[in-house]
Amino acid sequence: MPSNIRKLRIEWCDCDPAGIIFYPRYFEMFDTSTTMLIERALGMKQIDYLKVYNLVGHPLTEVRTRFHEPTRFGDEVTIETMLVECGISSFKLEHRISKAGALAVEGFETRVWAVRHPADSSRIASQPIPAEVLARLKDDAP
Amino acid sequence: MPSNIRKLRIEWCDCDPAGIIFYPRYFEMFDTSTTMLIERALGMKQIDYLKVYNLVGHPLTEVRTRFHEPTRFGDEVTIETMLVECGISSFKLEHRISKAGALAVEGFETRVWAVRHPADSSRIASQPIPAEVLARLKDDAP
Amino acid sequence: MPSNIRKLRIEWCDCDPAGIIFYPRYFEMFDTSTTMLIERALGMKQIDYLKVYNLVGHPLTEVRTRFHEPTRFGDEVTIETMLVECGISSFKLEHRISKAGALAVEGFETRVWAVRHPADSSRIASQPIPAEVLARLKDDAP
Amino acid sequence: MPSNIRKLRIEWCDCDPAGIIFYPRYFEMFDTSTTMLIERALGMKQIDYLKVYNLVGHPLTEVRTRFHEPTRFGDEVTIETMLVECGISSFKLEHRISKAGALAVEGFETRVWAVRHPADSSRIASQPIPAEVLARLKDDAP
Repeated sequence: MPSNIRKLRIEWCDCDPAGIIFYPRYFEMFDTSTTMLIERALGMKQIDYLKVYNLVGHPLTEVRTRFHEPTRFGDEVTIETMLVECGISSFKLEHRISKAGALAVEGFETRVWAVRHPADSSRIASQPIPAEVLARLKDDAP
Repeated sequence: MPSNIRKLRIEWCDCDPAGIIFYPRYFEMFDTSTTMLIERALGMKQIDYLKVYNLVGHPLTEVRTRFHEPTRFGDEVTIETMLVECGISSFKLEHRISKAGALAVEGFETRVWAVRHPADSSRIASQPIPAEVLARLKDDAP
Repeated sequence: MPSNIRKLRIEWCDCDPAGIIFYPRYFEMFDTSTTMLIERALGMKQIDYLKVYNLVGHPLTEVRTRFHEPTRFGDEVTIETMLVECGISSFKLEHRISKAGALAVEGFETRVWAVRHPADSSRIASQPIPAEVLARLKDDAP
Repeated sequence: MPSNIRKLRIEWCDCDPAGIIFYPRYFEMFDTSTTMLIERALGMKQIDYLKVYNLVGHPLTEVRTRFHEPTRFGDEVTIETMLVECGISSFKLEHRISKAGALAVEGFETRVWAVRHPADSSRIASQPIPAEVLARLKDDAP
């Protein structure tokens, strides 16, 4: 199953008056890493796969996160993201953020494949993941 | 044990291209509600209780959140926050966000009482919650 | 011309490691105040006036801001927003944030009335403000 | 005088329901680019130059920004940052964000060299930029 790894630096804009990262920022990082993973698996940019599959997005139904070590501005971190399960209309991801080789944060997300609600375009609804997407998500072998 | 309830409106600045709230924003709301709860329990503003107890903050060690219904800009929501457990150096909170009476989001946080590390001021360390704080957190009866 | 005034409290989530507000947060406040002003002038919620006028939003073409005094978490501030000029397809706003009666921040925004580009829905384009909107924006007399 | 150039991608988390970047995000990018420029000029990481010079930060007294073209998630942009003026206790920066070679955003910032107020540590005050810093900022020749 696909995975994604990237490095980034924690910045001043990510941190709070304690001088450490303000934790909601980690979820932005998870979100971007998830997008990158799907882009790579589908071979399309997000703006394109949203159009092709008439997708609204891949919002969360659940997230669980453990914070082991704080990070602060200037810290170089690595975010490893793995697709770990793929259901009918939802999928699960794990994110591991490490700093200097030590695990700092673990995140576990469940996301759904979401489209505009057929009866009410102002609402969104989960929908079965298309077979071709599923095939790509379940087997990312190059 | 203390609780806090407040109303707020989801705004454009909270939402993503799907037109719904970008989920990290919920964690900002949890954070502010937590502060308000502690302020009320201690009878002090955050900036004051940080000084009085030489506290760096009350960062998280774990958070779990379930998203039942999306919210979008213009939605009026209610956030109810309850302190549900109080340990030696950590405490647990539950946050319930509801929209039009229906539960939209549930959050479960574990936070620690954090001070500057005695041996290295650039690090933070958890510390036993002072007895007088504990008394206030465990019994908020007016 | 319409104006809007509201009070809010600067929170921990708005602040940076210097312990003061991280300045981009002011622009979120300007944005929400602008929405509130337009909602009141048009007598409709944002989600409704976007639909009624097929509007994408009211993005900025220019902003200028002067920061006189820093604000920090716990500060109660007042944001006063005034529509000061209304052109064919753009309008200008002034925002004044004060703390304890003293002016802390002044913002000057130019925004456009933006719709989907007729020839390319992935782009946006400014458009003349509809006459009925203009009438409401130029005369907010109750 | 020093300059800094970097590339980044606009992400979903940066965008609003119009599908374009929510403009306060640009100011986060300006802030990080400013830090990078100073780090390079001083040959120190931010966390170190804050300590060495007992600096609280380099907050803004003024910012002016012109938005020429919207950017949206997936867009690769380049941010060029130039120190353009250096006074006694303040300095001016220009930021130019371009997309596919075209100028999208121009930002003009005035920032101050800020320390803890000598008489009241809860306040901050501007202070003359140290001579050695000034020398580095005025002449970045390698």
